[in-house]
Amino acid sequence: MAQNSNKKQVEQITDMEVDFAQWYTDVCKKAELIDYSSIKGMFIYRPYGYAIWENIQHALDQKFKETGHENVYLPMLIPESLLQKEKDHVEGFAPECAWVTMGGSEKLEERYCIRPTSETLFCEHYKNVIHSHRDLPKLYNQWCSVLRWEKTSRPFLRHREFLWQEGHTMHATAEEAREETMRMLNVYADFLENVLAMPVVRGRKTDKEKFNGAEETYTVECMMHDRKALQSGTSHYFGDGFARAFDITFTGKDNQLHHPHQTSWGVSTRMIGGIIMTHGDNSGLVLPPRIAPIQAMVIPVAMHKPGVLDAAAALLERLKAAGVRAQMDDSDQSMGWKAAQYEMKGVPLRVEIGPKDMEKNQCCICRRDSGEKVFVSLDELETRVQELLDSVHNGLYERAKKNLEDHTKVCHTLDEVKQFMDTEGGFAKTMWCGELDCELKMKEQAGVTSRCMPLKQDKVGDVCVCCGKPAKHMIYWGVAY
Amino acid sequence: MAQNSNKKQVEQITDMEVDFAQWYTDVCKKAELIDYSSIKGMFIYRPYGYAIWENIQHALDQKFKETGHENVYLPMLIPESLLQKEKDHVEGFAPECAWVTMGGSEKLEERYCIRPTSETLFCEHYKNVIHSHRDLPKLYNQWCSVLRWEKTSRPFLRHREFLWQEGHTMHATAEEAREETMRMLNVYADFLENVLAMPVVRGRKTDKEKFNGAEETYTVECMMHDRKALQSGTSHYFGDGFARAFDITFTGKDNQLHHPHQTSWGVSTRMIGGIIMTHGDNSGLVLPPRIAPIQAMVIPVAMHKPGVLDAAAALLERLKAAGVRAQMDDSDQSMGWKAAQYEMKGVPLRVEIGPKDMEKNQCCICRRDSGEKVFVSLDELETRVQELLDSVHNGLYERAKKNLEDHTKVCHTLDEVKQFMDTEGGFAKTMWCGELDCELKMKEQAGVTSRCMPLKQDKVGDVCVCCGKPAKHMIYWGVAY
Repeated sequence: MAQNSNKKQVEQITDMEVDFAQWYTDVCKKAELIDYSSIKGMFIYRPYGYAIWENIQHALDQKFKETGHENVYLPMLIPESLLQKEKDHVEGFAPECAWVTMGGSEKLEERYCIRPTSETLFCEHYKNVIHSHRDLPKLYNQWCSVLRWEKTSRPFLRHREFLWQEGHTMHATAEEAREETMRMLNVYADFLENVLAMPVVRGRKTDKEKFNGAEETYTVECMMHDRKALQSGTSHYFGDGFARAFDITFTGKDNQLHHPHQTSWGVSTRMIGGIIMTHGDNSGLVLPPRIAPIQAMVIPVAMHKPGVLDAAAALLERLKAAGVRAQMDDSDQSMGWKAAQYEMKGVPLRVEIGPKDMEKNQCCICRRDSGEKVFVSLDELETRVQELLDSVHNGLYERAKKNLEDHTKVCHTLDEVKQFMDTEGGFAKTMWCGELDCELKMKEQAGVTSRCMPLKQDKVGDVCVCCGKPAKHMIYWGVAY
Repeated sequence: MAQNSNKKQVEQITDMEVDFAQWYTDVCKKAELIDYSSIKGMFIYRPYGYAIWENIQHALDQKFKETGHENVYLPMLIPESLLQKEKDHVEGFAPECAWVTMGGSEKLEERYCIRPTSETLFCEHYKNVIHSHRDLPKLYNQWCSVLRWEKTSRPFLRHREFLWQEGHTMHATAEEAREETMRMLNVYADFLENVLAMPVVRGRKTDKEKFNGAEETYTVECMMHDRKALQSGTSHYFGDGFARAFDITFTGKDNQLHHPHQTSWGVSTRMIGGIIMTHGDNSGLVLPPRIAPIQAMVIPVAMHKPGVLDAAAALLERLKAAGVRAQMDDSDQSMGWKAAQYEMKGVPLRVEIGPKDMEKNQCCICRRDSGEKVFVSLDELETRVQELLDSVHNGLYERAKKNLEDHTKVCHTLDEVKQFMDTEGGFAKTMWCGELDCELKMKEQAGVTSRCMPLKQDKVGDVCVCCGKPAKHMIYWGVAY
């Protein structure tokens, strides 16, 4: 019976080898992360999905504060004239803005767009609060939702409205702003690797792929289970372009007027999509322990037997007291249902205790990542659970790293790239001349876009993979979400 | 010199006795809580203002979770057809909706309003996830911003866009839903009194003043320094009205289909306005310690003298280690400037240490609420600071309570109410027949609106203050923000 209902539950999701996209959608729905709303492309973050985001927020917010940033909240609407102040910026964003044209029953004199990003609003505010070098740096961050009127949509990966954070900072010198750009890229990379167990490639975007209005964009790129790339966080250096457009100046120590130098950086709920596609399997979600809303689910076995419920409750309390996010399921569902349910929800550890375990002063812990079961003495419960959580984290990280390394291939010619993408897929690692023409040709002929020019540049050749002229950069190509 | 620059800073704000509204605006600006944006009625929450909101969020969110609620996030846009499903609700909100009519360059087939509140969206989602009595109760909460296209605006009190939380719950029975309505009202009341040091009157709104679409609305009303009322939180019981309009049903234990019963409840950044107007004085903001972003500001005296900076830094570390939100100002500003600055910002305790204090193994702590200075032995620093923070909290609460009690007056006739409002102002406590006509007449003739029918009903007479007919309720009247 248990096996049966277990299977029944699992059969509800498509195998990832059969249809990766359908598997992904199934996981989002069956793990109760998301629901659809009546507006296309706008999703509902259900409690379990939102709890993951809260844990991400909490961990990142702490990092931001440790690095001196303060949170603020700016309006969600941008007057069209404000959006137009920086030319490259408006060109990039205007086509995907949602426009408010009526307030109550009145037509507005000027239309407002719902923020797709807030550089322009921050600049307007910075003009009010930056006057002297003493006012710098300004290190601000905002947690909010933004809206981009996209044509296609997919849970977590492409929403018309999504949750994110956007850091916006102003500095007295270009050098300081560049340092900030790299500092925050590294905060993201550390977070992805050490909290989400997602190995990253850190690098710089090409001019074609950089943020509208930025001088330089840096990115952390991850490889998903299907070997496609997910851009998982970006950090932009703006120089003083926006500051000039918005006429923001400060009096320097030299008593002269200067324009400050700016950065912005952001990550979004798209990271949850990354978690699913990096760690998930055919039984459902697999959550990295450090952001899992439930790290350990305690399940009493043969609940009706005397003392079992008490023993399970005592175990739960000990885990909670040790700072583990633990819950207990003492509902009347079958053991098979419970096993399948918490597999589907990606709970890192299932902790079972029944009469036999009680006799032996132990519990049985089942790892979500490997399915391995270990018997743990209750005398060392807290330390062993913490070790197991760390071990799950490390195991997930190593597996994802192997996926990234095994499917990153040095290619020297366009044909090699084409063949690699057609047969295996992954990141093609090549040299590049730096010209847009070659970048466009790679897209056209091999179906790949440039992912980034990694910060660690190994020279894998002398000439451009596409045109054969002298190469300037080592670069990764791939198919991206 | 110190006195002078101190004065200079303080002189920048208007005395509250001269112009309360101007004093309020001055505090919002000078304490760096808020900035104006280029859209009328849309404000920028600056770091210090937002940090207060973060502390409020943190404390309330913990309470919500302790009482079994889960956070979710629903879209910010509501299709017009969805908003129209509940008739009373749309009538109340449509006049103040901002409407999105264009997505990119395309005109939308149906216009969408930016959420003024999310009952309709929650109902749409609940229809998808509620099927059986096992799915109930659903106890959801959302932290977000909402938009209401108001004609007038004022920092924190009336924004076109403001930050809030909205709880939305569904229950199997009316009784459970009513319990939830009162539970959350009490959570708000406890929070206002025990965290924000704002005494409240808990009561029920009249039919005229209740929320659009609700069967019953409960409120916590506070009295501001100028004796006006601030509605500081509301909790609504909906019955099954929305559930019927949205066709939400569940199979009960009796195997029959039923409509669930609903509540919603919310508080917003308006509470920050309440804090300012309850506790502030002519030197600026006065923050209740439990949500103050900085609870203690350490200021080294005669910084250039040997050992002072080290002693101050050691003191700071001890306070932080004891869980006090402490900072140090070792900038080259004058003592007078620093005193005035942290008075303006409402920091509950200023902790000064200089060479003389060091000799005596003490520091000097100045309370923001009373201006009182106490010398504290460094041997008992942590306990004394905690005691002082509690004492500031209690002092603020008692002072506000006295204001509320001193300016609540039993009145038996409309003339008495008029005279009370004309001369003194505050809450007029009267009997009422329960008829709308009398409520309207009170507004017309005495300029007051009904605040609430307190849960604790003392019978202060037998007949309605307005028409003289037999009274049904004791009720509070006042002028409200």
